[in-house]
Amino acid sequence: MPKTTFMGSLSSPKVEVLVDTGNPLLNHTLDGFLKIGTVAVAKVAAEETYHMVKRGSVSKHSLQNSLEKMCKEGAYWGTIAGVYVGMEYGVERVRGTRDWKNAMIGGALTGALVSAVGNNKGDKIIMDAITGGAVATAAEFISYLT
Amino acid sequence: MPKTTFMGSLSSPKVEVLVDTGNPLLNHTLDGFLKIGTVAVAKVAAEETYHMVKRGSVSKHSLQNSLEKMCKEGAYWGTIAGVYVGMEYGVERVRGTRDWKNAMIGGALTGALVSAVGNNKGDKIIMDAITGGAVATAAEFISYLT
Repeated sequence: MPKTTFMGSLSSPKVEVLVDTGNPLLNHTLDGFLKIGTVAVAKVAAEETYHMVKRGSVSKHSLQNSLEKMCKEGAYWGTIAGVYVGMEYGVERVRGTRDWKNAMIGGALTGALVSAVGNNKGDKIIMDAITGGAVATAAEFISYLT
Repeated sequence: MPKTTFMGSLSSPKVEVLVDTGNPLLNHTLDGFLKIGTVAVAKVAAEETYHMVKRGSVSKHSLQNSLEKMCKEGAYWGTIAGVYVGMEYGVERVRGTRDWKNAMIGGALTGALVSAVGNNKGDKIIMDAITGGAVATAAEFISYLT
């Protein structure tokens, strides 16, 4: 079954990481980075494949370009996801409970952090924190719904 | 406990809807619309409150403006979430299984539909479908991680 194969290959780095780091917060963060980074790489791969099929030619230059895009988007999505998963885990530890408010607080912290790192200031950081919290809360509710 | 109260108030429309419509696909869609619409309304409310507190004044005009924004964003987020939840439910019915691929397919269909409704054409719709599928897959993985 394709599902088993894919999940297996996604889970294998997790096991190694759990053995290696020994810090649960870091494990969560790394796990989020690897899994969501993989999704982003697959997304760029799909996009680039579509473009190549449409153009009908594969050049060395376009392959190199695609590879660069994969690395960039993979690292970007992976970083945000890693920060979020780490934050939610941290919030869960501090609050001592598991509910949708962890997602909201973790999303808000992640939004603020990503925004601050991206050289935004003042109001923009707060707006990004609110948006991050709202998106994380929405994703949490959707995961209950489906 | 605040959690119980909030979840209670969010769940009440679901029960009514389940009684009213009798179509499970429509129930899922409406449920997603209401819950995620509520999140978006809360997001705009938080943003507007921050602006008002910062400005230090509340005028009739700004209140009206905020209310309009709430309606717009609530309807927009709610529609996308409703379409996604409905799509994922439909995909689950067609495929007969529950796994991350439902999220991917549902996200891709939602991305394509929202993009097509938004007057995009050709390549843009396909790119939005790929992005929708990737975002939904990422959200699904994150919900396993946290």
